[in-house]
Amino acid sequence: MGRVVVDVMPKPEILDPQGKAVAGALPRLGFTQFTGVRQGKRFELEVEGPVTDEVLAAAREAATTMLSNPVIEDVVRVAAQED
Amino acid sequence: MGRVVVDVMPKPEILDPQGKAVAGALPRLGFTQFTGVRQGKRFELEVEGPVTDEVLAAAREAATTMLSNPVIEDVVRVAAQED
Repeated sequence: MGRVVVDVMPKPEILDPQGKAVAGALPRLGFTQFTGVRQGKRFELEVEGPVTDEVLAAAREAATTMLSNPVIEDVVRVAAQED
Repeated sequence: MGRVVVDVMPKPEILDPQGKAVAGALPRLGFTQFTGVRQGKRFELEVEGPVTDEVLAAAREAATTMLSNPVIEDVVRVAAQED
C-alpha cells in the first residue's frame, strides 16, 4: 500500500489567524525562540499498490483542484511518503 | 532565517471526518485511485538564525504540548525545512 503526502500552506501574503494565534501563545508557554508561525494542512492519500508517476500526477491535480484553494493557498509538496 | 516544520496527524484509530469527506469527494471528481484520505495539520515555525539542536528540541516540546492534542493526534515529523 502506497501513500502520497500533500502539503498545503496559506500564501505568504494571506493573513493566517490560526498561525497568528499559535505564534501569540508560544511565548506564554516559554517558547520564545519562534518569531512566526504559519498553519497549513497535510493530507495523506492512500493507494492500493505502489506510488507510480501516474498516481503522483493524479495527486498533484487533486491537490490544486480540490485539496487547496488556489486563491489563498499554495500546494508546497506532493510526494510519496518515505517510511 | 530558519524554519522548522511540524506535522500533526489524527491517530489511526481516531475517526477523521475531514479526511472521510475528502475521500468521498475525490471519486466524484474522477480521482478513483485513492482508497483513503487522512487530513492533519502542518505548522511552519520561524526562528531568527539557524535551526540548532536546541531549536529542534524546543519545537519538539511545543509540538507535543501545544501544537497537537496527544489524546487524538500524533506528531509525525519535526524537522528543519530543507529549501
